[in-house]
Amino acid sequence: MKQTEKEFTAPKTRPVQVGKHLIGGENFTLIAGPCSIESQEHLELTAKTVRSMGANLIRGGIWKLRTSAESFQGLGQDSFHFIRETLKKNDLSLVSEITDPRQIEEIHDFVDMFQIGSRNMHNYALLKEVGKTKKPVLIKRGFAALIDEWIKSTEYVRQGGNENVVLCERGIRTFETATRNTLDLNAVAYVKSRTHLPVIVDPSHGIGIRSLVPSMAFAAAASGCDGLIVEVHPNPEKALSDGQQTLNFSEFETMVKQLEKILVAIGRPLDKT
Amino acid sequence: MKQTEKEFTAPKTRPVQVGKHLIGGENFTLIAGPCSIESQEHLELTAKTVRSMGANLIRGGIWKLRTSAESFQGLGQDSFHFIRETLKKNDLSLVSEITDPRQIEEIHDFVDMFQIGSRNMHNYALLKEVGKTKKPVLIKRGFAALIDEWIKSTEYVRQGGNENVVLCERGIRTFETATRNTLDLNAVAYVKSRTHLPVIVDPSHGIGIRSLVPSMAFAAAASGCDGLIVEVHPNPEKALSDGQQTLNFSEFETMVKQLEKILVAIGRPLDKT
Amino acid sequence: MKQTEKEFTAPKTRPVQVGKHLIGGENFTLIAGPCSIESQEHLELTAKTVRSMGANLIRGGIWKLRTSAESFQGLGQDSFHFIRETLKKNDLSLVSEITDPRQIEEIHDFVDMFQIGSRNMHNYALLKEVGKTKKPVLIKRGFAALIDEWIKSTEYVRQGGNENVVLCERGIRTFETATRNTLDLNAVAYVKSRTHLPVIVDPSHGIGIRSLVPSMAFAAAASGCDGLIVEVHPNPEKALSDGQQTLNFSEFETMVKQLEKILVAIGRPLDKT
Amino acid sequence: MKQTEKEFTAPKTRPVQVGKHLIGGENFTLIAGPCSIESQEHLELTAKTVRSMGANLIRGGIWKLRTSAESFQGLGQDSFHFIRETLKKNDLSLVSEITDPRQIEEIHDFVDMFQIGSRNMHNYALLKEVGKTKKPVLIKRGFAALIDEWIKSTEYVRQGGNENVVLCERGIRTFETATRNTLDLNAVAYVKSRTHLPVIVDPSHGIGIRSLVPSMAFAAAASGCDGLIVEVHPNPEKALSDGQQTLNFSEFETMVKQLEKILVAIGRPLDKT
Repeated sequence: MKQTEKEFTAPKTRPVQVGKHLIGGENFTLIAGPCSIESQEHLELTAKTVRSMGANLIRGGIWKLRTSAESFQGLGQDSFHFIRETLKKNDLSLVSEITDPRQIEEIHDFVDMFQIGSRNMHNYALLKEVGKTKKPVLIKRGFAALIDEWIKSTEYVRQGGNENVVLCERGIRTFETATRNTLDLNAVAYVKSRTHLPVIVDPSHGIGIRSLVPSMAFAAAASGCDGLIVEVHPNPEKALSDGQQTLNFSEFETMVKQLEKILVAIGRPLDKT
Repeated sequence: MKQTEKEFTAPKTRPVQVGKHLIGGENFTLIAGPCSIESQEHLELTAKTVRSMGANLIRGGIWKLRTSAESFQGLGQDSFHFIRETLKKNDLSLVSEITDPRQIEEIHDFVDMFQIGSRNMHNYALLKEVGKTKKPVLIKRGFAALIDEWIKSTEYVRQGGNENVVLCERGIRTFETATRNTLDLNAVAYVKSRTHLPVIVDPSHGIGIRSLVPSMAFAAAASGCDGLIVEVHPNPEKALSDGQQTLNFSEFETMVKQLEKILVAIGRPLDKT
Repeated sequence: MKQTEKEFTAPKTRPVQVGKHLIGGENFTLIAGPCSIESQEHLELTAKTVRSMGANLIRGGIWKLRTSAESFQGLGQDSFHFIRETLKKNDLSLVSEITDPRQIEEIHDFVDMFQIGSRNMHNYALLKEVGKTKKPVLIKRGFAALIDEWIKSTEYVRQGGNENVVLCERGIRTFETATRNTLDLNAVAYVKSRTHLPVIVDPSHGIGIRSLVPSMAFAAAASGCDGLIVEVHPNPEKALSDGQQTLNFSEFETMVKQLEKILVAIGRPLDKT
Repeated sequence: MKQTEKEFTAPKTRPVQVGKHLIGGENFTLIAGPCSIESQEHLELTAKTVRSMGANLIRGGIWKLRTSAESFQGLGQDSFHFIRETLKKNDLSLVSEITDPRQIEEIHDFVDMFQIGSRNMHNYALLKEVGKTKKPVLIKRGFAALIDEWIKSTEYVRQGGNENVVLCERGIRTFETATRNTLDLNAVAYVKSRTHLPVIVDPSHGIGIRSLVPSMAFAAAASGCDGLIVEVHPNPEKALSDGQQTLNFSEFETMVKQLEKILVAIGRPLDKT
């Protein structure tokens, strides 16, 4: 911290429209769903259930380029037809990660928000490419990115003409090993005080321990973020990726109920549209 | 995260009595006051004001061994007589840091809780010595201590027979430089889930930027901690140490009002004794 | 450190051929040149000079996607014709970074080794793509990548059939701010003891302070690495990028003379082909 | 790195006398010995053997306050009589750690250099106390101390009138877990370029893996440090502490032979007095 602050006024957040929902507006946004889409039934069941419990948008990975090239890598193109159909039938909006500039065109028509994952925040070639579209972009913080680098990464999207950028804090890499990452809620307060960008938080990656995800979701909400993105799965023990940090439906429902009390207390209720 | 957790039950927190207040009990504890005690008038004014605004205990440093040997080092022995008198007259309880085993005896009679600072969490000789007293001990997390090392540091106190230990998360050192430290609220959830130790949070050191301290205080409360320790000063711009992260009375009052709403929402109101 | 080691035998390094030079063979490899190629004269002058002083291969960036989208971004396609010509005329081999899968085809014919930069080590889509070529690949360690993640990233290249992978340690991001990065020579010893991959070191990024680059080059050589990659420029004060860590010709020449003494002492002289 | 450097001249190192040896002078210093002194026979055997192989000074812990209060804590006072006798009989000088101001007087007469361990670098009360003696002090870098904090910590010793301070780099705590610490040789070059303090390196803690300690010792020597402190034990598998990073006599002897070649190459041979 290098400055003295007097008469401090934070900039007003400029909301971003995703499907029929507004991120960064008067209400709080809740995005939930599986790490990876595993089948049509899996997507449909999870999406409908979390939607009925208060989630506004659905998350789900189509490609998963993981640390080991031998791990499950996502369904890819095999899932396109059923994702499109399932979303349409249920009037749902999907947030999904892209890792290659060539994927943008492939899924542009049925995905509502592109996610840039933590490992690609510094992949400026990819950011430039999504900047050429008008589709909302969720930029997860690089797990070792300075907050200022994270804010600057948005320039690569915005210089192409796409102003629909939302940031997502998901934990940083530190010396601590008891938790998967160190969730940095300082970053939420800092970004909100210096920019007009909406910021949401991923408590699932942020702590990486299922039973402790709700505590971090509550903390994030109270810190002043604009929404959450939470991993939920019908049966986390059998999830093909990230099961150890994924809530089941019942855990999610319990969490949302407590979350709503906090949101009411801070005057920013959950988006009910 | 190395384990799968099913049917998880967190241990029950064992409260610690400090003066007439219970840390880790049914109510939330609020400790406030200056980084360093600067004079009798300064201590008295700050203590009475923050007490009237809801603080339960007063914090204030007697010795400050700072990074540079040339900086202000605290009033030391010159302050003993007036601290004792001021506390007695106003029926207040004080939390104050010790950095040398020989200080224990010097201030034992008028300080209600010894604080072990972040730079001394690994000073096991000092921990052993406070373990020989019955006085409550607040152990701040070393700024680069693993959560498990922090928990283990309490053994040095407890093996002497002193079970009155409270932990304090105050931010860790990471690559991030926009904020003074990285407040690690994961650590609160983790410690509460694995031990029966009360845990409080220091949002002032945790973020180090005055205008953002309240956001981190709210986040900490929602994460499930047992209390807060906050730096407050009549005139932070003129504080002899840590002014850039210290609230003035008006900022503190505004913060407490919003904090109370969140505490009510989570069912753990502020200690009013 | 999780294991006890007895009768330890390190695997033998498998050399990789780049142009007429072998990285990881009996001799030590020295790669030098500018951060970015700034003009034909600039490339030619630097390449010829460092070659005459002992460098085996030339480095030089064609595209530079930097933290701020407003900074100098490299010459790109405008430089293709003269790079090809300059290399041919002078019988030189070039190592150059790619950041987008579509660049592979563009520069495939005149670049001798593709460099994957630190910010793209986790860009698995890009790694997969270079794996489909036979061109040698230099994978710089992600600035926050675990050594094991770095080793695993090579799988993405090798599963495509390209075994010509060389690793490059270039410093990691830590809490320290006096130096640009923290050069992790432990990583060299660790990788050499567990894999047969050649490992080189970038002391320029590793410390980021011009006058201290030679000390780190000597340390790296003594640690057992297979080569160095060093930033050199005719006039570092006027370099369009990274000037503060770039040696001028005279500094480079002095460094190479001292380096050669150490290389002789450890029985691995500089490659003179 | 925040400055441009032209016509850079590093300050001249001011040597410190320890016993009959000079640290930071024309020759290179080698300190070796066990983590903890385990018995009279153990000290005598190790000291004589490493001395015959080229070590100048002997290291050995009397008290070990370890992370867990349940682990072996050193022989303490039970060892005073035989340490004194063994050193005298064999004309040896000892470097040993203190962790409590009250230990200074206890061992002042037979220890030749006080070591302040990494966990106590920020224990300014202890530093002040050794500053009141004239005994040489070895200050290990705090495992999360900025280089500038480490340099500033010497003020606490020097303001008492004791100028006999030597620094020791021993690795810092980072996100990397494959090695025990991350040895930061940048710090050696940085301190040597900005201060006149002698700097030695501890490769044993620096990497924490026995088979890789020699590589880091060679790297440290080539980086320009003034000496090494290495853990050696007659039977590391049975050492009461730190065995996994401790060399046996044969490994130490092999290491010293290779080290001497590098020291000759850089013009700074091993101290033979």
